[in-house]
This record gives sequence, C-alpha cells and structure tokens, in this order.
Amino acid sequence: MSAADLMAVLLAEHLRYDFANPANPANDHLIFSKGHASPLLYSMYKAAGAITDAELLTFRAAGSRLEGHPTPRLPWVDVATGSLGFGLPVGAGIALTAKRLDHLPYRVWALCGDSELAEGSIWEAFELAGYEGLDNLTAILDVNRLGQRGETRHGWDIDAYARRLQAFGWHTVEIDGHDIEAIDAAFRQARRTQGQPIAIIARTVKGRGVKAVENVDGAHGKPVPDADEAIAELGGIGDLAVQVMPPQSASSPALAARAARGSTDGRTGQMFMPSYEPGESVATRTAFGEALVALGDLRPDVVALDGEVADSTKAQAFADKHPDRFFECYIAEQQMIATALGLQTRGWVPFASTFAAFLTRAYDFIRMAAISRANLKLVGSHAGVSIGQDGPSQMALEDLAALRAVHGSVLLYPCDANQTSALVAAMAEHEGISYLRTSRGNTPVIYRPDDEFHVGGSRIVRAGADDQVTIIGAGVTVHEAIKAADALAGQGISARVIDLYSIKPVDTGTLRLAADQTGRFVTVEDHWPEGGLGDAVLAAFGNGHQAPALTKLAVHTMPGSAHPDEQLREAGIDAKAIEAAATALIANVAVG
Amino acid sequence: MSAADLMAVLLAEHLRYDFANPANPANDHLIFSKGHASPLLYSMYKAAGAITDAELLTFRAAGSRLEGHPTPRLPWVDVATGSLGFGLPVGAGIALTAKRLDHLPYRVWALCGDSELAEGSIWEAFELAGYEGLDNLTAILDVNRLGQRGETRHGWDIDAYARRLQAFGWHTVEIDGHDIEAIDAAFRQARRTQGQPIAIIARTVKGRGVKAVENVDGAHGKPVPDADEAIAELGGIGDLAVQVMPPQSASSPALAARAARGSTDGRTGQMFMPSYEPGESVATRTAFGEALVALGDLRPDVVALDGEVADSTKAQAFADKHPDRFFECYIAEQQMIATALGLQTRGWVPFASTFAAFLTRAYDFIRMAAISRANLKLVGSHAGVSIGQDGPSQMALEDLAALRAVHGSVLLYPCDANQTSALVAAMAEHEGISYLRTSRGNTPVIYRPDDEFHVGGSRIVRAGADDQVTIIGAGVTVHEAIKAADALAGQGISARVIDLYSIKPVDTGTLRLAADQTGRFVTVEDHWPEGGLGDAVLAAFGNGHQAPALTKLAVHTMPGSAHPDEQLREAGIDAKAIEAAATALIANVAVG
Repeated sequence: MSAADLMAVLLAEHLRYDFANPANPANDHLIFSKGHASPLLYSMYKAAGAITDAELLTFRAAGSRLEGHPTPRLPWVDVATGSLGFGLPVGAGIALTAKRLDHLPYRVWALCGDSELAEGSIWEAFELAGYEGLDNLTAILDVNRLGQRGETRHGWDIDAYARRLQAFGWHTVEIDGHDIEAIDAAFRQARRTQGQPIAIIARTVKGRGVKAVENVDGAHGKPVPDADEAIAELGGIGDLAVQVMPPQSASSPALAARAARGSTDGRTGQMFMPSYEPGESVATRTAFGEALVALGDLRPDVVALDGEVADSTKAQAFADKHPDRFFECYIAEQQMIATALGLQTRGWVPFASTFAAFLTRAYDFIRMAAISRANLKLVGSHAGVSIGQDGPSQMALEDLAALRAVHGSVLLYPCDANQTSALVAAMAEHEGISYLRTSRGNTPVIYRPDDEFHVGGSRIVRAGADDQVTIIGAGVTVHEAIKAADALAGQGISARVIDLYSIKPVDTGTLRLAADQTGRFVTVEDHWPEGGLGDAVLAAFGNGHQAPALTKLAVHTMPGSAHPDEQLREAGIDAKAIEAAATALIANVAVG
Repeated sequence: MSAADLMAVLLAEHLRYDFANPANPANDHLIFSKGHASPLLYSMYKAAGAITDAELLTFRAAGSRLEGHPTPRLPWVDVATGSLGFGLPVGAGIALTAKRLDHLPYRVWALCGDSELAEGSIWEAFELAGYEGLDNLTAILDVNRLGQRGETRHGWDIDAYARRLQAFGWHTVEIDGHDIEAIDAAFRQARRTQGQPIAIIARTVKGRGVKAVENVDGAHGKPVPDADEAIAELGGIGDLAVQVMPPQSASSPALAARAARGSTDGRTGQMFMPSYEPGESVATRTAFGEALVALGDLRPDVVALDGEVADSTKAQAFADKHPDRFFECYIAEQQMIATALGLQTRGWVPFASTFAAFLTRAYDFIRMAAISRANLKLVGSHAGVSIGQDGPSQMALEDLAALRAVHGSVLLYPCDANQTSALVAAMAEHEGISYLRTSRGNTPVIYRPDDEFHVGGSRIVRAGADDQVTIIGAGVTVHEAIKAADALAGQGISARVIDLYSIKPVDTGTLRLAADQTGRFVTVEDHWPEGGLGDAVLAAFGNGHQAPALTKLAVHTMPGSAHPDEQLREAGIDAKAIEAAATALIANVAVG
C-alpha cells in the first residue's frame, strides 16, 4: 500500500512492457526486490489485463501462480524475490547486460523496501551500478519507515539514503511517494538521466489509505482488521484497467549473432574441447580455464564472471580471449551471482567462478537462483585440504554439502584435465544450476581425450571379477584411490575403483551393481564427512535397496597449514588411509 | 609490505596490548581483516616479543600456529580471517560490545585491504559503526591499488572511499601510508575523535621496499623473486624489538556482574526454564522466545541478536525483558553473525536469530566462526514447507545440510515446547556453534516438563518388543510419525517412533539398537533429501556397522504457496506418506 501510488504511475506512464509477449527482448524489467509486496505486483498484472480477477483471488492458495512472494512461474517475473537484498542486485545485472551485451534500450525498474537497504548485497549492487553508470536502472526506494519489527535505522530520514547513494555515484531524487505529480516527474527524470543510475527515494506511509493500519507498527504481513471497511476507505470496489505501453521494437546485433548459435549447438560436445595427453600433469582449474576459452570460441552465448581471483580460478584465460564477454565482479560474490542471474534472464549462459570456499558467501543467492529456475554455472576452485598451506579459511570443505542441498543442482568434480574439459562442455549444455569443483594442484591426466563423461555418470577406473571392495573417490581422491588399489593388489586384495565425478545426480546403477558385486564400499573425499560424496553414495541406496557395508573417509579435524601431501595424510584421506580402511572392512572390523 | 609502515607506527605508539596476558579485558583488539597479510601480523608479534624468530620461520609449515591466514590458535587473534570482508564486521561487533556491555575503553583497530571494500558485508559494518557512532573503532584502509587480479575498481582514488565512508557517518583521514608522521598524526586523531568511527584511508604501494615487486601487478601471494636481494633492499637482517604499551587497567561493572555468573551456572538446567502442560498447543518458536527470556533472567552473560524479525522468531520476548542485552541487527545477517562473534570474543553468550532461510545469507560467516572456534548460538525459525503460504523463498529447506557441514556444529530441532525449553538451556551450556531449528505453526506439547533432552540425545516416543519398523522424525514430522504409527497399529503393524531432536551429534546407540531390533527405518524430514535428517541417521552406520533397510522421505519438488497441511501432503512427508512408506518397506517393495 505504501508503494501503490508509485507503481500506479509507473504502470500507467513509464513502464514499457508487452504483456502478451513477455519474451519480447525490448521489454522493460520490473523487479519487486521487496517481494512481500506481491499483492501490489499481482494487482498491477490485473490492471494490465495479464491476469483475471478470479486468478487474483487465488493469491497464496495451493496451486496458484500467485505465490506469497513472486516467482518465475509467472512469465513476467525475471527472478524469484522474497529474500530481501536480492532483487535489486539482479536488476543491476540485467541493466549491465543491456549495456554490455544486449545493446538494447530496455530499462530496469526495481522496487526496494527501506528495510532491505541494510543488506550488504544491496550496496554491492549500488557500487556496481554507480561505477558502471547504469542509467537504464532505476531503484525506487519505498521508504515507509516501518520494517517488519519496528522502525528502520533511518526511519523517514530519506536524506540519509540520498547521501549514501550520491557517494556511490547515483543520481537521487527525493519525493513524497504519494504525490502523483512528483512521482511522475521523478520517473520522467529517470528516463532522461544519462550516465548515472537513478534512485527515486520516496517518503511513503505504510498501510496508506486504510486508517486501521496506516503508519501503524506491528501490522506488517497481516490482513487488515476489517476488509469491507478498508475497501470502502479505498473508494469501493473498482475495476481499474491500465493500457501499458509496449516497448518500441529494437534490434540487437549481439542477440542476432547469438541467435545463430543454433547451428553450433552440437559442436559443443567434447570433440571441440581442449585435450590432454595421458601422463601429463595439469590442474583441473587450468583445464577449466582452457575449456571455457574453447566454449567461448564455439558459443557466442557463453559468458564468464569471476570474483577478482581469475588468475587462481583460471577464468583469466577466458578474460584474455573474450574480454567483451568477461565480467570482473571484484570481491563481491553476491553481486557476481546476481549479475550472472541477470545475464541468464536475457539468455546468456554464465559461468561464475571464485574459490569454492567463497561461493558460500553467496549461498542465499544460489538458493534463490534455484527458486528462480535459473540457468547458472558455478565453478569453485581450491577445494579441500589439498590446497595445502593457505589454511582452512581458503579451503572449501562444505561446498558439496551446501550445493548438493540446492534444489535441482548438478555437482561435478573432475580428477583430470580431459574429464574437466568434457564436464565443462556438459555444463554448458545443461539447463539449470550446475557446479564444478576444481582443484589447485596438478593431477596426472588419466583419461583419454575421447573418453566420455556426462551429468549423472561415473567412471569405473578399474574392476575385476574378484573385487572384494569398491573404493569411491572424486577429484584428488581418485588418484589416492588408484594408489590404494595398487597397494591392496600387492596384498592380494582386488579392489574396484569408481571415479564418482558426478556427485549429483549420482550414478545409482553403477553403485548398486558395485554393491552387489563387491559388498563393501570405501568412500573417500576431501570434504567434511557431512553431506558430501559419502552421503551422495548412500543416496543411491535406501528405498528398498540395501546399502553395502561402508566406510566413509573424510576430513574430521580442522586443518592448519601444511604441504598438500601432509594435509591428505593428516586428514586420513590418502592412499594409506584408504588401504587401511579397505583391509579393516574386509576383515569386518568395526572402526567407529 | 604496503601496510608495514602503518602497522609499525600502530604497534610502537598506539596499540595498547598486554602480550603476556591476552585475556586482559582492557587490551585493544587488532584484527587483520586482510588476513593474507599474516606475515606482517606475525612480524608484529615477533617485534613485540610474543613469538621468537625460530617460530616466525615456521610460517605455513605443518603444525605451526603461524598459518597462512591468522586463526585463534594464536592467543592474540580474536577471530580467524582470510575470507575477505569478515574481519572488519567482527571488529565493529567488538567495538559495539565495548560501548554497550563491557563499558571498557579498549579500542579496535582493523586493517582492511582495498579489494575487500567491494564486499557488501563491509558496508553492513560501516553502516552499523557509523550509526552507532563507534569512536572506539578505527578502520585502517590499506589502499595499495592492486588486488589479487589487477587493479581494484577505485585504484588509488582514495577520495572515492572517503566520500562513501563520510556518507555512512564516518570520520575519514586520507594519508600517504608511507609517511610516518602522517600515519602517527592519523592514529592520534583516531584516539581523539569522539562520536564517530574513524577510517584512516592510506594510499600505499604494494610490495613497498622491494623493487622487483613494488607496485607490480601479478605478484600477489607469491614469494619475492630473490629473497637475499629483497632483504638487502630492506636494509639487511635486523632484529627489531618494540615495547608495546600495555593498557591501563580498567574495571567494568557489567563484567563484574557477569563474573558472578559462576554461582548461577548450575541453575540453567531445565528446572528453571519455562514449562508447558502436555496437550497445550505451542509453536516451538514461541517456546524459544520464552526460554530465552528465562535464560536471560538466570544468566547475565546471555545476549540476543535478531535480524529485524524478532516478532516472528519470538526473540522479541527477550528484547522486551532484557532490552540492554538485545541487539537489533536489522536485515543484515552477516553483520548479525559478526556482532555475535564480537560479543563472544568478550565472553558474552550470543543467541542470533532470524528465519532459518535467511541464515544462509551469513553462511560464510558461520563457516569462519567455526575456524574461529567461536561460541555461537544460532536460531532459525520458519523452517520447511510447513510454514505454508509464504512460499519457497521463506522456507529453509537446506539449513540442516549447510549447518551440519559446519565443523563441530550441533544441530537441534525440537518438536514441542518443553523440549525446546530444555534444548535452549543445553545450547547455553554448550561451547561451540549450535543451531536450533524452530517451527512456525503450533504443535502439541507431547513431553512432560521434567523430561530430559540433551545434545546428542534422541527420544523414543514409542517402542515395543515386536516393532517391525522404526520411524524417525524431528520437529514437525515427529507428530506425523506418531499419527502414522497409530495408523500402522490399526493395520497390526507395530512401529517404533524416534524423535531425533539432536540431528548432530546423532544418537548412534539408539539408532543402531533400533536397526538391530526392527531392521527397517523410515526417516521423514521437512527438508530437501540431501544432507538433512536422513543423511544424519545414515551417519550412525557405516564404518563396520551395517545400515538398516531405509526409506527416506523428504521434500523433492519445489513448493509453492499452500496451507501447511497441504504442503506436508504435497511433499510426501505427512502421516499418510509415512504409513505408505513403512508398509512398502515391510513388504520389501523397492520404490526408487
């Protein structure tokens, strides 16, 4: 209700949107960063004729598209909102896409609450937009003073916001958010301002128009006490229809070039990717960088983002070859993900990389990406204790657990360069959220360039008819598993080795067969024991399928600094530890 | 090297620190927010006589306290750093603790890199400190222009930082970071400035003093090319000793009152906590709020923080009763955790609450809290699909997976009010990171006030000699499990029901016994299938202990809005689904 006047003027006069064709590339983008104002958004859709009164009344009912907070089940919604501080950053990402790649004149309008201005992610977006001069982005700050619990830090001190935004390079306009003429003038100014993003900082009244709740603390998120009275106060039942102006048609050379992509689609298979000679020693992060370059050569829609560590993640190779499609996001992981989400709403295929440990900084954004049905490729380098000396703050040891619990995610963890190459190609083809975990140190190339790897696959590295145990690793632990199998062979024990490079989805068939044939599993992972590879293996069982006897090797104690080999030994995930676990399991000794 | 001059002056003239007694409450706090400058920090310890040359040379070696990035294995380090954007927020938390609770004159000095100023979390801290006027906090911005990969957004434009900080209410001083007199004057000003935090914005040169790397891009995190030459350039081998001035002794009534805590320690058991009559209907979030008030009554060291949703998490009850120990953190979850960490470095016992879904925003900070060996109590409300209509953005469905993978964490998930009361008391006594997952809706009180619950425990809700299956739930699903057991009894099937309220550590003994006695498990959780209760149950097996036949019920499809009962049914985690899973399991039907 505090933002109703603002949105009424926007819808009637300034939004350029073709509701009949949400895919029109020239459409503006309207993002309710304050997703809890969804009734207002849905009312706008109703006024625009996009939904009916009957549908509007399904608000929050089972099966309705009109959820408590907006999601892309509605074709006019770019990303789900409802986690405050998320919508504006994505809006900045879309605005940047317009400037850098689409070269289209659409505008982004982001409605923000004042409470969410406390989120650091919002300031990452303000910084990006101010620095890049995104004059196609308008942030509409609905400063109604009252958060969910009491007054915000700055209350109605809209100057406090203006000062901050100006310092961040924004043009600001301060208005009474219920003065229709002032609102209209502000939007006109927004469309006119060049070289700077604009913030319309509107002093508004929460619950405006209904005395029982107007400017009343404690009424957040609750129905009005008397609906009939409220309707009467608001002027009775109406049937407002607004003719929303469609955008002028516009053409984009970049989009035209990208549209030619269809013809190269099939070429993104492994055969056009970089290949490596077995026996070479190459870090999977290096192979990722080289694969990304090749993908960029093949596909004009592939773009890359990095959190100011491209020299480490090796996304630098892409930045060098395809600078026009590379986005330096600086040390602002939330905005990096938000920019990637903005890019994918416009059909670009983003790979976003940083140290795997620092992706945790953006975990909520990745959660929201899943609700947004996003096409997002994540790459985390420097995973696990095997990075060595830098210490635990730099080691991702929870990334598999966290990202495995993202709805619909795919988790890939290669152990050699050829496999990395194939999996990067597979990620590009996969629609949805996927994650590639790369390693810091060099590992031997053990696969041939034409070996095939795919989402949901695994690789039997060795197997025999007399296997007494199956060792399952991924990434760096595959190499330890192979060494352990060699050592076990010396003891007369035949061990199967499975490279479970697809942690999610997991290759249920291969694992079940191995369980039937060998009866015993040793899983080994460079990760905490919870939620990673070992748990992924167990997910292949249950629901009527008996799990094998299993020993899970993982990192149990907080590491410090040490050489990579020392780290693997100390954590008990090296070849020796695997060998010991396998022999204990075969001897049927309980170890925990 | 860029910050060496800054730190030399700080150590010699302005830091007040008793290195012989790091626990001295009057000590200043020195935080290297740019943790990768650890060699400088350790050199300061060496110069101060806190460590020897011999130890200094163990830098990054296995077993050394001198890790690649600082951790509290060193007694002078408050929190681990190395994830950029983390140290300054904690520093702001410590400074706030000094003002609000300790009432001690210690100062906080935080050395920040310029790259990390891109992190939103830094701006949450700037906002907090500016708004609260934390004049005991000095941020030393080492603006050396070069990040790990190339130049930062603002390079040497130190005015850009000054404008932003001034807008956030900070006093700023811009200096040449290699001008000793200017540095000294700035620190003097920092100690004099009242009512505002101060930022010393220092233009510095990366690699200062060694020509081969001075102001050279691409030299980040690498050894100098020629160590002997570098030593010669820097003036040869020296043996600098600095007499660091200890703080003046100071007394704190609040700390004196808290010290009396010893006598009340035993009283924080269940018996002094709120109790509920079996049969009442109470939300566990409500019971949490009431338990927190009782804890606050009993223990002067307990403090509460909330992310502007205290009316929903019910921390509001504590805010009403103990306003002096309540911290409104607004919608800035990273700073909320950082403030909690600041509080616990000073011996306070913080409970930080928000919607469980929004704790994901601070996941990296929680990861860093574990490396920091912190004593931190987290409370997440509105978990799971059972919240109902608000939709997926508000539903925590990955919190158990993410937080279970935090090193050393404890995860508690109560199903009734008496249990909540007991577990909140247990959390207060537990040292380390613990997490309480509460539910939105009312649930029946099924336990008696004197029933005992503890970290690592479980509760057998029903059991018989002929149990053919064990149903394991926690929180809302316990009640569904009981209903399912009733229905199964009607079919002549006897089912054991375990309330696995301690998800981590898990009650291995009870689960193994149930596996031996009933042979079949149905686990049921209001969470994605990955990494939650089902996986926690499986963690009791393996390592030589055979897992039972198991069916895991969890949320598999993205929910929308619906009534809580509809949500449970739709997700397949209600009593009917449990009953069906149990009968299928007993009939030995594979279902997936």
